[in-house]
Amino acid sequence: MATIKDVAERAGVTVTTVSRVLNNRGYISEETREKVHRVMREMQYQPNEIARSLSRKKTMILGVIIPTIAHPFFAELTNYIEKYASQRGYKILLCNSRMNQGKEKEYIDMLTSNRVDGMFMSSHTLEVDEYKKLKQPIITFDRRIADIPYVSSDNEQGGIYAAELLLKKECRKIAHITGNLGLDLLSNQRTDGFVRTLRAQGVEPIVIELGPDVFESEGYEQVITSLLEQNPDIDGIFTSSDILAMNVIKVCMGKGIDIPGRIKLIGYDDIEMASLVTPALTTIKQPIEEMAERAVHLLDGLIRGEEIKNENVLPVTLVERGST
Amino acid sequence: MATIKDVAERAGVTVTTVSRVLNNRGYISEETREKVHRVMREMQYQPNEIARSLSRKKTMILGVIIPTIAHPFFAELTNYIEKYASQRGYKILLCNSRMNQGKEKEYIDMLTSNRVDGMFMSSHTLEVDEYKKLKQPIITFDRRIADIPYVSSDNEQGGIYAAELLLKKECRKIAHITGNLGLDLLSNQRTDGFVRTLRAQGVEPIVIELGPDVFESEGYEQVITSLLEQNPDIDGIFTSSDILAMNVIKVCMGKGIDIPGRIKLIGYDDIEMASLVTPALTTIKQPIEEMAERAVHLLDGLIRGEEIKNENVLPVTLVERGST
Repeated sequence: MATIKDVAERAGVTVTTVSRVLNNRGYISEETREKVHRVMREMQYQPNEIARSLSRKKTMILGVIIPTIAHPFFAELTNYIEKYASQRGYKILLCNSRMNQGKEKEYIDMLTSNRVDGMFMSSHTLEVDEYKKLKQPIITFDRRIADIPYVSSDNEQGGIYAAELLLKKECRKIAHITGNLGLDLLSNQRTDGFVRTLRAQGVEPIVIELGPDVFESEGYEQVITSLLEQNPDIDGIFTSSDILAMNVIKVCMGKGIDIPGRIKLIGYDDIEMASLVTPALTTIKQPIEEMAERAVHLLDGLIRGEEIKNENVLPVTLVERGST
Repeated sequence: MATIKDVAERAGVTVTTVSRVLNNRGYISEETREKVHRVMREMQYQPNEIARSLSRKKTMILGVIIPTIAHPFFAELTNYIEKYASQRGYKILLCNSRMNQGKEKEYIDMLTSNRVDGMFMSSHTLEVDEYKKLKQPIITFDRRIADIPYVSSDNEQGGIYAAELLLKKECRKIAHITGNLGLDLLSNQRTDGFVRTLRAQGVEPIVIELGPDVFESEGYEQVITSLLEQNPDIDGIFTSSDILAMNVIKVCMGKGIDIPGRIKLIGYDDIEMASLVTPALTTIKQPIEEMAERAVHLLDGLIRGEEIKNENVLPVTLVERGST
């Protein structure tokens, strides 16, 4: 059975270097890292990871709690979290909290019993008391819970951009479709910025708030249909996600309502699909990759005991395409 | 500090039952399970999971290797894997293999050193020798590697359905756009079934094979554009994914080519987005949820040492919508 010394010898490095590669500590060039891994495989060297993690109290596993990975925004976010976390040697445990509220508590339990080193929390649960007690490393997305550091994009500015563009395009009868504003999410600031900007110009928007489970898309079409039937003069719509906007396109196509001819439409997120639909979607782009990268950097810092910034708000951009 | 006995007493169950809940062994009603978890939380009972997993040699963690979670098909598949795995007490470690080929080997190492109990493999790597040596529990999707059990949908029948529909719609100049057929994937049978069925009716399709990284969508549009420019009389297209079909819609819209008027279009997968685009996509529906459920059932069986079936092929269905 190969030992760590055998591996070091064959790879032409010191035992310390092999240990660093194994523990993801200190600076190791990508080349050295790969060589050590190759030699370990060749020699079938199997460090007993579980025993090691017991002694060093690190699992190198991070939890990711999101409502559902089936939603493209969270799929893209998780994709980048995994990318940047793996560059630092972490693995990602995935938790879809939407389907089962008890699951979120299981993940909190894993964190408190050191079975994961840290956690990204982006769930949409109402109940956040469980989080407030925790001393362990957590980063949230779009939620401000006690002193837990968070990453978000500039939601308010996103709402302002959307309002300004619709006003510039001379829309006067404007609707806004959003998730449940009763949830304490920073993304509600999209609505704040949007509504405030319109009101300053004397335009009072119709605000449609969806039910508690905004990811249950079956009901979207009906809500949009009745909005358009009750307000046939609507000429501008801003939705709080691209998926919602795609539902608006679908309903409008079915009713023969031309976008952008009769209604200008703006989404939110800039998921990959936004440029694929017809008309291509004008949207507020969240810097999804940068948000993930920042969150991984912050969580890794917390785990290492570094001081980190609590508020991390990244800029959004307006992406104009065919729907306006 | 609460002991397992304290928990059992307060929950009104036996110590064996608490142990079963902790270890996910034996039959426990959902009600009892929840009660025990609730009491454990109330009493802040923290079993030392790492030490426990060391003694019982189980981590209750499963690896999922996919090309990228940003692709809607894999996001939906992983969503359901997580759903059914968590019902059996497993957590899911996510590995996007596309961005880094070395990662896949790290997961294989985790499996051989018992840091995960089993693995779902759906990567598109060329190199599968690493897998052939393994004795550990693995289930693949759409790949037949040595004796490793696999789950797929009936790819060949999917290709046949697509060909039959295009023939019925009187298409005669037909193109097929697919991923790299050089990869040894069972999904290549979509092409086999499609081409064979057309040829039997005297129609020779144009087959366009994409590069090795089919998930790199930047190049799609150019391929589709030149296909349409070189063959302006194409009247039917079958793509090997809905995302590819959505790219065809985009290019056709840009060129003023009416779908389904001038070209009938059929996708593959039936991701949620397929019914949202305009025209809504006719597609071959893979039973994504059932495939995930079956795979979890099989992997759990392998981990428990049960005999399982090696070939698990689930039926596909033709879903006709606006694009044909």
